[in-house]
Amino acid sequence: MRIARFLHDDTPQYAFVQTDETDGTDYLIALEGFPFAGAAMTPTGERFRVDQDGIRLLSPVIPSKVYGLAKNYEAHAEFMHEQGWSAEDHAPADIHLFMKPSTSVIGPDDPIVYPVFSDEMCYEPEVAVVMGRIAKNVSAADAMDYVLGFTCTNDVTLRDLQQGDPMWTRSKGFDTSCPLGPWIVTRDEFNWRDAKISFELNGEEVPEASGTTANLIHSIPEQIAFISSFTTLLPGDVILTGTPYASGTLKSGDECTVKVSGIGKLRNVVVRA
Amino acid sequence: MRIARFLHDDTPQYAFVQTDETDGTDYLIALEGFPFAGAAMTPTGERFRVDQDGIRLLSPVIPSKVYGLAKNYEAHAEFMHEQGWSAEDHAPADIHLFMKPSTSVIGPDDPIVYPVFSDEMCYEPEVAVVMGRIAKNVSAADAMDYVLGFTCTNDVTLRDLQQGDPMWTRSKGFDTSCPLGPWIVTRDEFNWRDAKISFELNGEEVPEASGTTANLIHSIPEQIAFISSFTTLLPGDVILTGTPYASGTLKSGDECTVKVSGIGKLRNVVVRA
Repeated sequence: MRIARFLHDDTPQYAFVQTDETDGTDYLIALEGFPFAGAAMTPTGERFRVDQDGIRLLSPVIPSKVYGLAKNYEAHAEFMHEQGWSAEDHAPADIHLFMKPSTSVIGPDDPIVYPVFSDEMCYEPEVAVVMGRIAKNVSAADAMDYVLGFTCTNDVTLRDLQQGDPMWTRSKGFDTSCPLGPWIVTRDEFNWRDAKISFELNGEEVPEASGTTANLIHSIPEQIAFISSFTTLLPGDVILTGTPYASGTLKSGDECTVKVSGIGKLRNVVVRA
Repeated sequence: MRIARFLHDDTPQYAFVQTDETDGTDYLIALEGFPFAGAAMTPTGERFRVDQDGIRLLSPVIPSKVYGLAKNYEAHAEFMHEQGWSAEDHAPADIHLFMKPSTSVIGPDDPIVYPVFSDEMCYEPEVAVVMGRIAKNVSAADAMDYVLGFTCTNDVTLRDLQQGDPMWTRSKGFDTSCPLGPWIVTRDEFNWRDAKISFELNGEEVPEASGTTANLIHSIPEQIAFISSFTTLLPGDVILTGTPYASGTLKSGDECTVKVSGIGKLRNVVVRA
């Protein structure tokens, strides 16, 4: 099942996304309520084409908090070292987490605003986990029961500021640094053990930015178990699971497209503030 | 003006706090609505003694996010170095920020839960800023117009985990790590330029933990200007302005009391998870 959030007549609403078998088009089946905590998802009876005038997809969720994993693929850790962006040539053995605030979240096609105080903004395509239930002290074995689903994300980072910002609060948490979308694919329909991640810059695939969650150092259930050991994950909270390999710089006008197999494409264009 | 949030009959409500001139007791004047964005604060007509049975003060706000300043007093930076907790013997020239999530916030008299995975939990008494209006790209000269008021906080930290947790996400963001209260004193009635901070451990003042905001390296208006240059501060968002001097370890059963002149006392007891 695919779950989207969209804007129509200035009102945000949730919807199922269904592909019409006759014309192959994606439709939004508008819903009453929210897809969390076992709420009944009753169709309102309205149906909209995803690309219809007056319909805009929103970030599928506004999380209370976003946790991200630093260097959770060996290929990425090595790449960052080779590029001179990192002193370490290996990923850390432990999970290293950073946070992004709710105010950093944007949706599909929203602009990524390149702040005036940076000259080195980078993309990092990733799979994002969306929590469905309150999770505290959850074991890895039980962790997936607490997940609503998955979406695409771009962990946008101001690389030139990262060194002088030891907790990465500014370099990874600035407004628009957390695109999410285009929708959530529920966990029963998503192969989270081997999801292919790829990235297009201005419509051209960047081969060295791609990878698969099969190569995650700390698996998604391990991430949830670790995070929920010290904090309470709320419905809608998001975990950025790590970027698989290369990160690259962006300039004003660049079109970023994060693709995850089984989910779809998340597109955002960079604009200078 | 003092603004508290309290629980009565399982319902959280806001209130003005007024001291009765005849008996010297603090009373809660219950209000309709929320003290943000110029909302009308209409008394409901109900009045409760703060210490009355069935009345419990809550954290005066549930922030969407909490930013904290690392080493924002020279005395604290030197103390941390002398104790062997920090390699640097000076505070950084730039503002170094960390984040705590909304789920870390607790209120007056709520327990600070000492996690099983740590053996070195520390107190850090501080003044906390509570934002009153949406703030983005605000100048230091205008910053105070965006502040609702101030409260006491204890930036509880798991010192033994901090080194292996480079973004401090776990060591400063665990559940119960952000006590706030007992209430908000509005900015017009608070001397934020020279507020005295002190700390009592089990009822005994710890002289080396005290200080004044007059010694802040980065002033409160500068903090708001810096943070709002990269992120949108929402009403209710909180900034922990830094601890003035010493931090010390806590054990199960310890009673922490943060005192700030012009605000009052924030008391929390440590319990082992």
